[in-house]
Amino acid sequence: MTVSLVGAGPGDPDLLTMKAARLLTEAEIVVHDALVGEGVMALIPEHVGRIDVGKRVGKPLPQEMITALLVELGRQGQRVVRLKGGDPFVFGRGGEEALALQEAGVDYEIVSGITSSIAAPAAAGVPVTHRGVSAGFTVVTGHRRPGEPDIDWRSLAKVGTTIVILMGVTHRAAIADELIAGGLAGDTPVAAVRYATTDQEDVVRCDLAELGTASIESPATIVIGAVAAFDLRSVSHLAATSSATA
Amino acid sequence: MTVSLVGAGPGDPDLLTMKAARLLTEAEIVVHDALVGEGVMALIPEHVGRIDVGKRVGKPLPQEMITALLVELGRQGQRVVRLKGGDPFVFGRGGEEALALQEAGVDYEIVSGITSSIAAPAAAGVPVTHRGVSAGFTVVTGHRRPGEPDIDWRSLAKVGTTIVILMGVTHRAAIADELIAGGLAGDTPVAAVRYATTDQEDVVRCDLAELGTASIESPATIVIGAVAAFDLRSVSHLAATSSATA
Repeated sequence: MTVSLVGAGPGDPDLLTMKAARLLTEAEIVVHDALVGEGVMALIPEHVGRIDVGKRVGKPLPQEMITALLVELGRQGQRVVRLKGGDPFVFGRGGEEALALQEAGVDYEIVSGITSSIAAPAAAGVPVTHRGVSAGFTVVTGHRRPGEPDIDWRSLAKVGTTIVILMGVTHRAAIADELIAGGLAGDTPVAAVRYATTDQEDVVRCDLAELGTASIESPATIVIGAVAAFDLRSVSHLAATSSATA
Repeated sequence: MTVSLVGAGPGDPDLLTMKAARLLTEAEIVVHDALVGEGVMALIPEHVGRIDVGKRVGKPLPQEMITALLVELGRQGQRVVRLKGGDPFVFGRGGEEALALQEAGVDYEIVSGITSSIAAPAAAGVPVTHRGVSAGFTVVTGHRRPGEPDIDWRSLAKVGTTIVILMGVTHRAAIADELIAGGLAGDTPVAAVRYATTDQEDVVRCDLAELGTASIESPATIVIGAVAAFDLRSVSHLAATSSATA
């Protein structure tokens, strides 16, 4: 396989798939985003080339340039790992990259990763589905790029699924207003999780009416729905966390 | 950790997380479902005890009994892996088991797994999100158990996300009718994927109006939306598949 589009998961290197871990050791070059966790990056052997296309300092490369880079490296026959936070097909723009590689006749594969949309709530003890409480979940981006199709938030409020919003911190007030206008109760529980599965993990809980003004910083995964009232973290985890912050 | 609630992913053992793979080798007993792939089961060492609580032949154990079993094994201090297909919090009833363990004061952890709701579409070359095509996805169960909250399918049709249905084969005709009544076009693309990421992988494509009568067997993951028209599998994968069936 020439180019592997690989999901790096939510942060904890232990949540990489076995395939992803192996591909990192076999790669000649790794093209990675800013959202890939440090622990995952540490698994890349010294001799492997790295291209950071999502620099936090300075601007990330335009997507067209990333795609062109992957096609070129693939044509050269290099073993390329395109490493993305979470899963390549969940707002990872993996579809665009796969399409360009397919059109260029470059061989590639998709390697699914653990998505933060499920794992970040889980790290906060929130199950996105729960019998008798939630029979499904909707994952949406709160950061609408130009040309992106609209989400009908008012209809979403009526569906009955748990709502998980990625990249939603900036527009959380407007989103909360729309969901309440659509019929969701203002006291619907909310949990916002940052840096899930890493040492910096941080959970903020509030209700939907408070979401707009709650102190939440990017990048956070925001979960809205009755399940967000759960805290299914184990007793030992909670004890470790509270003693760490004491 | 006494009890680990572990996601086994969609089938391919290479898509296990590193943590899951390690826990399987360290376990004293593995309590597993019917949906865990054979390749994953083969990674469990010979000396490790196994309890199959989801027998395909005969009835699966009632959930209350599984939960009581986990609490009892945990109280004995055994290293237990509760192994579930996909992710423990996506229709895995992991929340119920975690709640019972928490209430019993038994230490446990949640280990997220790759969910079929994203990985099965990906295996069929379908990205659940795609820039300019789909800004989100909704995962729902099509198999409504007694006491389960309702999904408002007509509102869901208006939201604008990709729709992924697990356990939806039996009721697919009624679901398609509701989605069309809610405003989704009859020619909306559909892909149904069985045994994703294994040798038996099988993809059926149709449109929404045909879904009720299309030849689809359980257990299939059904994806509905414009993204289902994509086939982003690589050229080499497609060539291998077509020569295998030729």
